[in-house]
Amino acid sequence: MASTPETPDAESSSPDASAADSARFDQIVNLAKRRGFVYPSAEIYGGFRSTWDYGPVGVLLLRNVKDAWWKSMVQQRDDVVGLDASILTPPAVWEASGHLSNFTDPLVDCKECGQRWRLDKLDDPNQCPNCKKTGSFTEARNFNLMFSTHAGPVADEGALAYLRPETAQGMFMNFKNIINTTRVRPPFGVAQVGKSFRNEITPGNFVFRTREFEQMEMEYFVHPDDAPKYYEYWKAERERWYLDLGMPREALRLREHEEDELSHYSSATADVEYLFPWGWDELEGIANRGDFDLLAHTKRSGERLDWFDQAENVRYVPHVIEPAAGATRTAFAFLLAAYDVEEVRGEERVVLRLHPRLAPYKVAVLPLSKKSPLRETAQTLAAELRDEWSCEYDETQAIGRRYRRQDELGTPYCVTVDFDTAEDQAVTIRERDSMEQVRIPLAGVADWLRPRLK
Amino acid sequence: MASTPETPDAESSSPDASAADSARFDQIVNLAKRRGFVYPSAEIYGGFRSTWDYGPVGVLLLRNVKDAWWKSMVQQRDDVVGLDASILTPPAVWEASGHLSNFTDPLVDCKECGQRWRLDKLDDPNQCPNCKKTGSFTEARNFNLMFSTHAGPVADEGALAYLRPETAQGMFMNFKNIINTTRVRPPFGVAQVGKSFRNEITPGNFVFRTREFEQMEMEYFVHPDDAPKYYEYWKAERERWYLDLGMPREALRLREHEEDELSHYSSATADVEYLFPWGWDELEGIANRGDFDLLAHTKRSGERLDWFDQAENVRYVPHVIEPAAGATRTAFAFLLAAYDVEEVRGEERVVLRLHPRLAPYKVAVLPLSKKSPLRETAQTLAAELRDEWSCEYDETQAIGRRYRRQDELGTPYCVTVDFDTAEDQAVTIRERDSMEQVRIPLAGVADWLRPRLK
Repeated sequence: MASTPETPDAESSSPDASAADSARFDQIVNLAKRRGFVYPSAEIYGGFRSTWDYGPVGVLLLRNVKDAWWKSMVQQRDDVVGLDASILTPPAVWEASGHLSNFTDPLVDCKECGQRWRLDKLDDPNQCPNCKKTGSFTEARNFNLMFSTHAGPVADEGALAYLRPETAQGMFMNFKNIINTTRVRPPFGVAQVGKSFRNEITPGNFVFRTREFEQMEMEYFVHPDDAPKYYEYWKAERERWYLDLGMPREALRLREHEEDELSHYSSATADVEYLFPWGWDELEGIANRGDFDLLAHTKRSGERLDWFDQAENVRYVPHVIEPAAGATRTAFAFLLAAYDVEEVRGEERVVLRLHPRLAPYKVAVLPLSKKSPLRETAQTLAAELRDEWSCEYDETQAIGRRYRRQDELGTPYCVTVDFDTAEDQAVTIRERDSMEQVRIPLAGVADWLRPRLK
Repeated sequence: MASTPETPDAESSSPDASAADSARFDQIVNLAKRRGFVYPSAEIYGGFRSTWDYGPVGVLLLRNVKDAWWKSMVQQRDDVVGLDASILTPPAVWEASGHLSNFTDPLVDCKECGQRWRLDKLDDPNQCPNCKKTGSFTEARNFNLMFSTHAGPVADEGALAYLRPETAQGMFMNFKNIINTTRVRPPFGVAQVGKSFRNEITPGNFVFRTREFEQMEMEYFVHPDDAPKYYEYWKAERERWYLDLGMPREALRLREHEEDELSHYSSATADVEYLFPWGWDELEGIANRGDFDLLAHTKRSGERLDWFDQAENVRYVPHVIEPAAGATRTAFAFLLAAYDVEEVRGEERVVLRLHPRLAPYKVAVLPLSKKSPLRETAQTLAAELRDEWSCEYDETQAIGRRYRRQDELGTPYCVTVDFDTAEDQAVTIRERDSMEQVRIPLAGVADWLRPRLK
């Protein structure tokens, strides 16, 4: 990547994007704001440093992504349990994990023009790309990416705490607690969904890189000999998850890290990457962390974090395979992948072809008129459907416009209550992608939808 | 409440609790740690200042509480939408809301003995309760309860940010975004579940009062004339929610605040209180916030946060009714209420009588032997059930001990695969509370459970 000025809050540009990609990206960002997916945080105060709020529709998409992950990674498995650890963490944790010393970017300022740069991203570490002056940089300072705060009644005297930059350490710290209080035994995993914070120097690309974000991480503890096998297993498993939820094959790839890309804790890492408008970029990393974390915390805490295999009468430190995904950027990637524009009878139709499990609303109920008995029938149906699914109800505007609105929200099915419904006790269901319509009995709507929304 | 020393991290004592209540409380805290509900955060480093991690069982209970709230407050309603706003917030928000000036506790230090006190909790504001010295206090300092941090590449130059002390302001700041991008109109609500942070001077009572906690808040925007009506509506609605989920009537009450208890923004507030071992204490507050918040943000931001009613051709600032519950303390209260000890055939049985919707695991599958075909039959059944529910599988130990373990986890149903199953293709289901057993066809387990777990 070319070096770019590292000024606070610069939104990173997208130099690799073609004009068409860039236009499409802008359309999707526009849709996201216009339809209540994402708003800039504190927008009435001018926004705040690349933080974002998920609106009424976005919060449902994000929940669906996280729930799909949880169901696949925890609920449906016999070998993975959940966890919800605290965000506030004492320094000892990050000393042990290496974050206090290694989770840094080297920053230099140009004494000539005042621009700030990340030294490791400069093509020429001596010349300022802005004013072209040579030898004008200050000494590099290591800038730690963790947010700090103080806990306790008076700031100066309070205990230093960090907002976690990853959820993973919660799993390592609770390793002993979990093996002592549940019936897990290697191979087993501990999974967590939750917010993490990184004081990124250049957040940007909409919700892709932000200082506050949500992660879906799992630490899978195995016998050291089994680590290579499970590394392969989890790469395949995680790639499949995205494909199962409708990510197009040609926009998803698994890329092994080069030797010089590897983190200090990892012997092998592969990224699940999505073809964003600015090029391939990371959704998830699957890392073979070896025994780095358990050993590091054993050393720092004095607690022996290992496993005694009674059957084999052998004690060992499990190795760890970690599939770690970004929930917010994954939701964003599904949104990008789902966005489609087509021409229908001379008009442009924008449609989000989201997998039904990810769609914010599963169904919309649309009475053709507000008059009795259409409204009552439609409201009763909506109330019934809401017991099972998120459901929209809309009685305003022409039916064509209402369909278009639901298309932009990605709603898989629209149920229309019309003037015949009172007589034939039937409704019309329109499918989002094909726009095909079927007439089915009013009393059978939920049964008709259930298998289609699985 | 009697004045207590306000030293950092003092766990508040429970002076009102009877010895029996206190013993019961200790047993439940013990169970919570022993069975994987709650662990002290960073325990291998000595814990960290009253923060807690939710273990494999606790995370499921907490998720179920939050999901039940979301379903009732968002999914099932036509008039409420969701939101997920950022935790990091700029100072302007808290200037407008009044938190920067009002969200403080006045602290004094005794110059004689060095103890620190909350001035507003002292019976005699001149005499130190510890060393009995009169006139020994320093000037009171207002200690703000918000956590602060800095966003941006270098700490000194970065922008000051606060960790939100409540989720509510996210809803007010997005008021305009939401009315502009969705079809809501008063009366309507915006709901959010998420973490908040308060630098409490005396956290304590296990997970009841912690510096990091999770909230479930909803802001309901109404015409000013309708505010009293909806205040009554939401008090009744919210109280019913706890009762529907099995909270015993005698341990729950709705208490109106006295005039002098009201917050600076509220004209009326009632608390939903649970009878904790230390006395009645708050689970949720339902407040009539009037137009305080929208006016405050209008004034500070210059954005006009109001509603134009086209049909009536009138513009007004909606009033707000806010039901604001603590998710973590509510989960804790359900745990306390569910805990029961009884004698069964001369033995003590500990059982969590949790509502099925709140139970961490809905069902456990227990083969009487690890041998074929019992194990395979049981594993196949467990895999089938996991598609719908969190399900335990346990093939170790005597069946009686396994039942007791599931009782302590609050699992409503245990399915036993026994030596007759291969022949009669049937299994035995044991119900947690009554311990009654029924024999039903293996193929019909999911259908049998479904209505009972609703």
